[in-house]
Amino acid sequence: MLASPTAAPPPVPSDADYRNRLKRTQVEMKKRGFDILALAGADILRFLTGLHGLPVTRPIWLIVPQNGNPGFVSPGSEVKEIQARSGTPVIARWVEWEEPVPAPTTHQDALAGYVAESAPQARTIGIDFNGTNGANIELVRQALGQERVRDAGLLLRDLLAIKDAAALDVIRLSCDVIGHQFRASVDAVAPGIAEWEVSLASFVAGTRRAAELWNGNEEQSPLALGLHMTGSGAERTARCHAAGAGRRMREGDVVQICRCSTGFFGHLIGYDRPVQVGSTRPSAEMRKVIDLARESQEAALAATRPGATADAVHAAAMAVIDRGGWENPVLHRTGRSIGYSSWDGHEIKAGSQTVLEPGMVITIEPGIYVDGVGGARFGDTVLVTEAGHEVLTPFDLGRDI
Amino acid sequence: MLASPTAAPPPVPSDADYRNRLKRTQVEMKKRGFDILALAGADILRFLTGLHGLPVTRPIWLIVPQNGNPGFVSPGSEVKEIQARSGTPVIARWVEWEEPVPAPTTHQDALAGYVAESAPQARTIGIDFNGTNGANIELVRQALGQERVRDAGLLLRDLLAIKDAAALDVIRLSCDVIGHQFRASVDAVAPGIAEWEVSLASFVAGTRRAAELWNGNEEQSPLALGLHMTGSGAERTARCHAAGAGRRMREGDVVQICRCSTGFFGHLIGYDRPVQVGSTRPSAEMRKVIDLARESQEAALAATRPGATADAVHAAAMAVIDRGGWENPVLHRTGRSIGYSSWDGHEIKAGSQTVLEPGMVITIEPGIYVDGVGGARFGDTVLVTEAGHEVLTPFDLGRDI
Repeated sequence: MLASPTAAPPPVPSDADYRNRLKRTQVEMKKRGFDILALAGADILRFLTGLHGLPVTRPIWLIVPQNGNPGFVSPGSEVKEIQARSGTPVIARWVEWEEPVPAPTTHQDALAGYVAESAPQARTIGIDFNGTNGANIELVRQALGQERVRDAGLLLRDLLAIKDAAALDVIRLSCDVIGHQFRASVDAVAPGIAEWEVSLASFVAGTRRAAELWNGNEEQSPLALGLHMTGSGAERTARCHAAGAGRRMREGDVVQICRCSTGFFGHLIGYDRPVQVGSTRPSAEMRKVIDLARESQEAALAATRPGATADAVHAAAMAVIDRGGWENPVLHRTGRSIGYSSWDGHEIKAGSQTVLEPGMVITIEPGIYVDGVGGARFGDTVLVTEAGHEVLTPFDLGRDI
Repeated sequence: MLASPTAAPPPVPSDADYRNRLKRTQVEMKKRGFDILALAGADILRFLTGLHGLPVTRPIWLIVPQNGNPGFVSPGSEVKEIQARSGTPVIARWVEWEEPVPAPTTHQDALAGYVAESAPQARTIGIDFNGTNGANIELVRQALGQERVRDAGLLLRDLLAIKDAAALDVIRLSCDVIGHQFRASVDAVAPGIAEWEVSLASFVAGTRRAAELWNGNEEQSPLALGLHMTGSGAERTARCHAAGAGRRMREGDVVQICRCSTGFFGHLIGYDRPVQVGSTRPSAEMRKVIDLARESQEAALAATRPGATADAVHAAAMAVIDRGGWENPVLHRTGRSIGYSSWDGHEIKAGSQTVLEPGMVITIEPGIYVDGVGGARFGDTVLVTEAGHEVLTPFDLGRDI
């Protein structure tokens, strides 16, 4: 029920896509010995049912049996929202007020009650420990029985690792939205302008583009929520997560634009570019930072192919960075699996033995950060293909600086 | 170090305020038998150190000893960010790359290593189970030893319950920002306009106002992140969390504006109003929904004073709603404690024996939701005072509909 009656179908997975994902999940449940899953992470709920954009303070549990259809155990506040936004039904609920026939008043009681009724024989209940905070996990463990609860995190990570065609369609739209954000960001960059104006321009452009893509859909907010990080000048680019704040950009600055973890329909991706402010060229040392950052990314991309380990991709970037001769110019890994969420569970970093496979989507975003000089990061989102890889973000945009 | 060198001091807590909060925390630790705390929740880090606005995918642990000063165990990516944004030092870190002298490569190893070195005798280590996901809590439990780890959630909830003067100053700014958001929202409401345009206008106005308040501060992003919920028409107002999406408002609609969980410097508050679209008046039944929603809020406010239970405040709202004679017109509790975050741990709901005390900040936001007719919610953020209460949000704004 994602479509509104009057608008064209929105560009999101179909009911058949969700059925396929459910089937894959149930195959894995049988293989790994989970009788039932209870999942609360917003990303996995979107993956399996299309539910997206609700407040997350009250846990919403999706119950997946080994056979048959899933359903939600919902706070009373979200029952109508869920029914409007997803074809998956609400099968139990809990309330914060009194009713003539008393209903459960906590999420864990509602969950345990439903499991007791629908699957009394379930011996192994898989919970996504990543999907809610530790306090709620404790409550659920106590309500279901410690000995029955197992973390289903690895099962879910493996399900999310290889993207299906429906996901790739949405990820391509995320890349389109981020392209709009980046162009609007560049247009807002000028000496004397505060960084936050660049972040706001990015937000507005991303929102307007998402609204176009949603094409009148009456349930999905197009707001381009995310940090829209923007950091300018030597001190702030030498960090990696400078917020778009009050600093006014100056002639000759470099400003690092990071549009990571925004996207479309919660399918978050990564995209980073350093941008020149005004026409004064960077210092020779900053030039070297920028050039080696770009080259390190290209080296990591060249190593990105099926069969390569994540460690080898990271090492390819590091080999270029090491040529700079700087002392400790690295602040983060080379990349991460992404696309269903802001982090789908794999890391492209030192020591990671994850083997790349066709269908994986990862960021390649090594950065160089030199105190007293500045920093730069070229980041793109890429699909691992049989032949090697395909860059999904606008690769050529903003490479010449 | 929240101030930039050139701008006026930003309107946030001072170093002395953070020292006072630390002292209160350490008194409670002694009273409750915690030798050390390790805290990862973004809200509690802001409360104790002013750290705000960093990405949350990599846990940042704040270590609080029973005596002496706190410090951060940080991912390598955030070390410079923390040093720029907070006066509290980074005392240990973990990395995602290789270094000549090997550093820890996971947050739990860095945390356990630091605790082993600095507090080898610690028998009871308090973790905020609310502050990170269940998977990270498990990793930390294993690294520190199951038997030493205890949830510090209740201690933290009690610390956050009574607002100090510094917090109230920021909460008043949050109310100011939300007033700007609401006025911009109302200005954007018109027949034929899509709901998301109202949400976007709210976001832009909130961002611009926050940027004014930050007054050039170079670390804090003014982006007014939050859901900016906007739902119009009979079907969507009869839910409580309709996103500002593609529906075009129509002459005579009511549109529910919910600016809950936005604010300033992470001090999130609540504010809700139903707004008329065009000049055609609502139906008699919708009129009754609006009038009783307003009256139920006023009844709950009248019951809001020191010594009252949260249950009694909720009951005062429900007594008015019950007069409507509708079948099950309620979708959520009457309110929640708020102000340091989007939910500080107490609930204004059926059965809650929480006793209100001067210095508590809560939302009063009962709603009425009638299928086939529509819904309405008047929500405000109030401070419990010795004399009763003080409404902090612009109470008179948008009451006449």
